Amino acid sequence: MARRLYELCGKDPARVFSPYCWRIRMALAHKGLEFESVPWRFTETERLAFANHALVPVLVDGERVVADSWAIALHLEETYKQAPALFRGDPDTYRFLVAWNDSILQGGLARFIVSDIPSLLGDAERAYFIESREKRFGKPLHEVTAGREERLPEFRASLQPLRVALRSAPFLGGATPDYADYVVLGSFMWARGVSPLRILEPGDAVHAWRERMLDLHGGMARGAPCFGA
Amino acid sequence: MARRLYELCGKDPARVFSPYCWRIRMALAHKGLEFESVPWRFTETERLAFANHALVPVLVDGERVVADSWAIALHLEETYKQAPALFRGDPDTYRFLVAWNDSILQGGLARFIVSDIPSLLGDAERAYFIESREKRFGKPLHEVTAGREERLPEFRASLQPLRVALRSAPFLGGATPDYADYVVLGSFMWARGVSPLRILEPGDAVHAWRERMLDLHGGMARGAPCFGA
Repeated sequence: MARRLYELCGKDPARVFSPYCWRIRMALAHKGLEFESVPWRFTETERLAFANHALVPVLVDGERVVADSWAIALHLEETYKQAPALFRGDPDTYRFLVAWNDSILQGGLARFIVSDIPSLLGDAERAYFIESREKRFGKPLHEVTAGREERLPEFRASLQPLRVALRSAPFLGGATPDYADYVVLGSFMWARGVSPLRILEPGDAVHAWRERMLDLHGGMARGAPCFGA
Repeated sequence: MARRLYELCGKDPARVFSPYCWRIRMALAHKGLEFESVPWRFTETERLAFANHALVPVLVDGERVVADSWAIALHLEETYKQAPALFRGDPDTYRFLVAWNDSILQGGLARFIVSDIPSLLGDAERAYFIESREKRFGKPLHEVTAGREERLPEFRASLQPLRVALRSAPFLGGATPDYADYVVLGSFMWARGVSPLRILEPGDAVHAWRERMLDLHGGMARGAPCFGA
């Protein structure tokens, strides 16, 4: 089988936790495409040189090498037209949702979970991760996530656009999930894979949506290593 | 001419300020459709009885009566297929943007501008407006907007999804504006029409986008009554 997905992990190769890789995991399952997961760690830049890219996900799909989650999603949609569509209509109309996800949801989640990540990493990646993230946030990682329990209500309030959108349909994609759902799920899978913090409360429509997402495609997401959150 | 748009105003019939009406104003201009604006005030519920609806916008388009901005947008797209498209592909893919706009942008703006609205209204509507909004917010309107200058930086930060989306194209719709742009512009036109508060700073990509929007369709939005903000 010639389809390989390079995915971010730490010491445990089964604990893949990149939100961008999760988008593609789910997209591949949505298309009904089998793939082999290739574990990749933060410091292994040279192992992606063949893709002319420094970050995962990278998909090797037969003869094709595609890097960057958005490019991979477009590649899958274009190449596997007979399989269920990832996008309804023009993929560009998903750009605002991705922008919201990357800035508000993923950017917000980072301030709750980033300090949980180092313990999952081997020595070399841990040093790289702490240094690069402390530089990004301008403070020690334990300070970034300080007081997180108290900050959760405000963060949960910022998810209101999801609740409003989910009033009219069970998935962001409508009656069935699409790439919008996989982008947002990716952020939650990142948190779920690295942190014991309970981000969502039962009773929240976003929690109920996530439960539906965890069950998709034979429970692919539900079966991933997590801390029980 | 048989196309009439019922729009919210206060004492000045030219100062139409409903964000939902602005979406349709711009959508009609996008389609190149002329219309007559019919002023409507908060308390004139019975004047919309013919539409079986209690709120504007209501569009009378020849024989058709359509209420609710989303339904009107779909009606325009369906009826005027030869005119420039309002939606690229499935309108449902715009639902998340609308949800974000209504909850975060419009809901956020309300806490900066709601106390500016009563002075624009006639006596009957003013009493209705103050009572209904104070009930909604659970406090006097001047308390809702208290400290607004100090709260602006946090609000501007919440617009980050717009900035990210606008990195790759001049409009949310891409190279040209579409209904996504009109939804978001509607919120800013509401603020601009009722409040002297300077919501956006020059230099902000959202400000630059709004400038482009104000110029569209012969400067329809730029020409609307505002407080110079």
